Amino acid sequence: MISFASDYLEGAHEAILRRLAETNYEKLSGYGSDPYCESAASKIKAACQAPEADVRFLVGGTQTNQIVIAAMLSEGDGVIAADTGHIAGHEAGAIEYTGHKVLTLPHHEGKLDAEELAAYLAVYFADENREHMVLPAMVYLSHPTEYGTLYRKEELTAIASVCRRYGMPLFLDGARLGYGLMSYDTDLTLPDIAALCDVFYIGGTKVGALCGEAVVFPRGNTPKRFLSTVKRHGALLAKGRLLGIQFDVLFTDGLYFSISRHAIDMAEKLKAIFREKGYAFHIDSPTNQIFVILENEVMEQLREKVSFSFWERLDEHRTVVRFATGWATTEEDLAALEALL
Amino acid sequence: MISFASDYLEGAHEAILRRLAETNYEKLSGYGSDPYCESAASKIKAACQAPEADVRFLVGGTQTNQIVIAAMLSEGDGVIAADTGHIAGHEAGAIEYTGHKVLTLPHHEGKLDAEELAAYLAVYFADENREHMVLPAMVYLSHPTEYGTLYRKEELTAIASVCRRYGMPLFLDGARLGYGLMSYDTDLTLPDIAALCDVFYIGGTKVGALCGEAVVFPRGNTPKRFLSTVKRHGALLAKGRLLGIQFDVLFTDGLYFSISRHAIDMAEKLKAIFREKGYAFHIDSPTNQIFVILENEVMEQLREKVSFSFWERLDEHRTVVRFATGWATTEEDLAALEALL
Amino acid sequence: MISFASDYLEGAHEAILRRLAETNYEKLSGYGSDPYCESAASKIKAACQAPEADVRFLVGGTQTNQIVIAAMLSEGDGVIAADTGHIAGHEAGAIEYTGHKVLTLPHHEGKLDAEELAAYLAVYFADENREHMVLPAMVYLSHPTEYGTLYRKEELTAIASVCRRYGMPLFLDGARLGYGLMSYDTDLTLPDIAALCDVFYIGGTKVGALCGEAVVFPRGNTPKRFLSTVKRHGALLAKGRLLGIQFDVLFTDGLYFSISRHAIDMAEKLKAIFREKGYAFHIDSPTNQIFVILENEVMEQLREKVSFSFWERLDEHRTVVRFATGWATTEEDLAALEALL
Amino acid sequence: MISFASDYLEGAHEAILRRLAETNYEKLSGYGSDPYCESAASKIKAACQAPEADVRFLVGGTQTNQIVIAAMLSEGDGVIAADTGHIAGHEAGAIEYTGHKVLTLPHHEGKLDAEELAAYLAVYFADENREHMVLPAMVYLSHPTEYGTLYRKEELTAIASVCRRYGMPLFLDGARLGYGLMSYDTDLTLPDIAALCDVFYIGGTKVGALCGEAVVFPRGNTPKRFLSTVKRHGALLAKGRLLGIQFDVLFTDGLYFSISRHAIDMAEKLKAIFREKGYAFHIDSPTNQIFVILENEVMEQLREKVSFSFWERLDEHRTVVRFATGWATTEEDLAALEALL
Repeated sequence: MISFASDYLEGAHEAILRRLAETNYEKLSGYGSDPYCESAASKIKAACQAPEADVRFLVGGTQTNQIVIAAMLSEGDGVIAADTGHIAGHEAGAIEYTGHKVLTLPHHEGKLDAEELAAYLAVYFADENREHMVLPAMVYLSHPTEYGTLYRKEELTAIASVCRRYGMPLFLDGARLGYGLMSYDTDLTLPDIAALCDVFYIGGTKVGALCGEAVVFPRGNTPKRFLSTVKRHGALLAKGRLLGIQFDVLFTDGLYFSISRHAIDMAEKLKAIFREKGYAFHIDSPTNQIFVILENEVMEQLREKVSFSFWERLDEHRTVVRFATGWATTEEDLAALEALL
Repeated sequence: MISFASDYLEGAHEAILRRLAETNYEKLSGYGSDPYCESAASKIKAACQAPEADVRFLVGGTQTNQIVIAAMLSEGDGVIAADTGHIAGHEAGAIEYTGHKVLTLPHHEGKLDAEELAAYLAVYFADENREHMVLPAMVYLSHPTEYGTLYRKEELTAIASVCRRYGMPLFLDGARLGYGLMSYDTDLTLPDIAALCDVFYIGGTKVGALCGEAVVFPRGNTPKRFLSTVKRHGALLAKGRLLGIQFDVLFTDGLYFSISRHAIDMAEKLKAIFREKGYAFHIDSPTNQIFVILENEVMEQLREKVSFSFWERLDEHRTVVRFATGWATTEEDLAALEALL
Repeated sequence: MISFASDYLEGAHEAILRRLAETNYEKLSGYGSDPYCESAASKIKAACQAPEADVRFLVGGTQTNQIVIAAMLSEGDGVIAADTGHIAGHEAGAIEYTGHKVLTLPHHEGKLDAEELAAYLAVYFADENREHMVLPAMVYLSHPTEYGTLYRKEELTAIASVCRRYGMPLFLDGARLGYGLMSYDTDLTLPDIAALCDVFYIGGTKVGALCGEAVVFPRGNTPKRFLSTVKRHGALLAKGRLLGIQFDVLFTDGLYFSISRHAIDMAEKLKAIFREKGYAFHIDSPTNQIFVILENEVMEQLREKVSFSFWERLDEHRTVVRFATGWATTEEDLAALEALL
Repeated sequence: MISFASDYLEGAHEAILRRLAETNYEKLSGYGSDPYCESAASKIKAACQAPEADVRFLVGGTQTNQIVIAAMLSEGDGVIAADTGHIAGHEAGAIEYTGHKVLTLPHHEGKLDAEELAAYLAVYFADENREHMVLPAMVYLSHPTEYGTLYRKEELTAIASVCRRYGMPLFLDGARLGYGLMSYDTDLTLPDIAALCDVFYIGGTKVGALCGEAVVFPRGNTPKRFLSTVKRHGALLAKGRLLGIQFDVLFTDGLYFSISRHAIDMAEKLKAIFREKGYAFHIDSPTNQIFVILENEVMEQLREKVSFSFWERLDEHRTVVRFATGWATTEEDLAALEALL
């Protein structure tokens, strides 16, 4: 069965597995203090053009969102997100579990709008009873968004500017960052992100690693005792090497970028196939997630031979589904799908 | 440099790395729903002689302690532990962070005593003002303990009996369970543990895996919506295969047991070496952690050529240090250490 | 200066102060175990026609919302509320602080709609990935709502029916319940509420008490160890008599109802005054909160001589403001206001 | 029946009830912004000789402990207390519920020892793995202690000095502060406490108020958005006047001190009675709580005619019980008890 169900279907890029084997018997200190974590951090800082940055490695995305938000906010403070933001609806309440409310604004194809954000904050800070309301103390956004869309440099700059006006950190969830950076339709670079955001992460799990997210504090602005916070959240990996080695490989010779570009190329071909076959798209995503509109009957037939994700019901007869490519998608996968359409 | 600093110095057993590579391009569903997780669970249930058991895989030990306790207790309930218990002092407050107090009793070489436990509970439940005090609602113990010691079957049975009298679950932290089961000085088997405890875990991180702990609910008594709880704690691995494959390998052909036995054999030889050289032990541990008393000067000299852990200051002149063996300890390591003593 | 700013401007009904003084030197046991709490509970059970009910006394509304929700939900579960619900926006994140997400549905003049609720739940429980989303585990509504509106018996019955279908408790916030029950435009009685809800409270703070809310578990369905939960939230009053005596007085000879009716009568006269003077209403509230539309200039002038609450900006030129009557509003207050309009 | 069961058996001092009645119909703004709160704060600042102080009013002791600790600590930080401290054992886990561990040190008749505190902190900060352990970030002590004992000025100064060396706030729980200040055996004044502590509270509930604790931040060092924190904990009283008026009365003409002295005088007479009758004391408490050793048979007989509190079993035949006097204890109460002994 062919599968375009997600970008985390396979294990890891072979270079990672190879390196894990090569280094397997080195006796290394734990908890992220090994030389591979250090090397990976250096390479990431270079890629971000952020020499002052501090880079930490965590295991998964929800974990990272929870820890970063809990570490950077004070008790009871809230975090603003688009209502489609991953933290708002698909993390089983991980943010609220740590006492922080997710304050949602309406999304625009998955994105926040700087003007709406500014208007929301202006109303909040003008309210005499604002201490009876949760303080908006951070802005969270995902790039690519949950809809596969991307912020333009101008848009992210405008949001960052609002954040700075109010002294609140801007946090970018980059679970699929590679696919955003290597899109053919973006003007936003990794150094731009490092310059505009106060904290962000470079996703590994969905971009060729077995697991792992690299959190970047671009100006060395790591919250105090961050290791202790990570430990308290049950997220401190004893064998930190597992994360360090993976990111060290991914950021050697641009592997992270080349495999991301491969996924984008596969996605572009996939879109061309759907387009040729006369299918319509729900959103014109420039990254590795393609949102196709299917007649329900077609969907049911296709489902028997290929895996994809249900996204949402469009109307009585049609459904939006998601096809995702990834670092491991092959031309054969595409050909097999094409034959079925 | 030789190192006996811990049992998580190396990567993973080679058979694990091999299997990760072999299965790498299989497209598998995520979050623990893949066939390797299922196969590993079956093998573990068989090893536990617990056909009704439910087995779940998590990444690390503190994470597992936090999630199991939070999932099994009601709001604000407490968990009883020895004052040396890992959750009491070395998890950065991970248990309290989720609102649960760790209620400590004095340890006996790392162990709880059933009679003291019963006495504590009797006093609590006789107190008219007990609703002003935290409810003791679970018993936590580690086996092996933080001191490398082991409960005898009789001792664990007595504790389990107290727990049942009060209707409270018994939770066994088995971060180093393999080393306990394969000690030459134990009468407690894996099926015994499954029969006596209400939840326990089989540690992978410290016994040959890159990461991973297998949580066993021996009578299928998994808390409702446990997957959601795991997600909410940021602990749900997208590529659950990483855990499933590792435990599937560890529980194939008794690998978990044979590598644990190897570590025990290495520890016995290590003890013999120290004994012959005239060193004294702080505790006579029957597992893979050896607690040696060193003159401070000797310690300083040794430290330059071999890694070990500081445990505690014994008096002005002497210090207790810990040497740990593991699945990857070699005869060469032992010989090199012997030459230094 | 005249004030219609809220219904908690004055101290307490004189009968309460008198009774506090009369009983002052009685030596009473603490924490709600005194005979006045018992007597008040009996009278409330009778008024609710709920002989099986359990009644507990807390100090304030946000406190009550937090404790009831925390006590009745399991870890990480969510509570559904209208997006205008007090818990959603005006309690400084008190619900999220205890780990529970407030899941909002669009309001209809402050009210939830049973069909929309049913549709929301149907979608949730049909979602294969629902364990990645917060479980809707309780429905919260306020009666009167934050807009002063009231559920009809039919509407509340429909909501209760949806709740029962899904096995989730229905919680009614009655901070202003007296004013709802004594409205001339309601068909919902206190026994109806006791029959339809799983937990609700009868507000004292806004209906003539110095402080206090009476929580009713109508079928004796109090969560286990509720006193301990109250203590853990810092809400267990040592001198529980302060709450017991107040509610005992309020539920003697129907005082709670007669003073509520007085406030309603004052509100009806207030509405008549505004209507006669040609003012328009934003919402036709049948209770003690009146939402009037004012030209901004008129508002500024009026503000100098009378206190009222800003509600929301209607357009560039007009603002919605709130006038509240209460148990202590006098004909003189009305006359003074009328003279100013 | 005579009762010496606690110091919160009666309602409030008559002057308080009188003032509540006198001011009852004043229309006052809520949430602590009324002139009585302001006046009370001014008088308390004067009594503390702390013109920079900020004074806030809360309802109860456990609530105050929870809020002050949660507001002043960062996520997951711990608070040091004597193992007999109220927060350690008798607040149903209120501190842990907000994610903070109570780190206990052995008590000395209820008191912490400055040298032991310093030693504990020295060990903690010397530990290389301290980020795996909860950070001790505040010191909590009660004065009078749970055993009715008092810190000498020298002792509190020494503890404050340790706190300052480590940059951690010193928090004094003064639930019974009046009785401590008016003891005949103390050299610690209210200005001393304001100078030495970083936050403390002056208990009202146990010293003549219906409820209420006055929190003092002596150098205006109130945590940011403290009102919002109070609201989030469900502790913001709508009718803040109830607290303001009570403390305004208590701090007018030294009423707080004179009624405290009365309780002390009653306690001294009570001790004399017991002493004359040949009873022994468990602890020589200089405040309003008297710990008497009773033969079990005597205790059972006495219990039928007088209320007191069980404290602890001393041995098989004898029990320690607590007799408390208060602002409302009368000579008649003493005479009646004397007649029974």
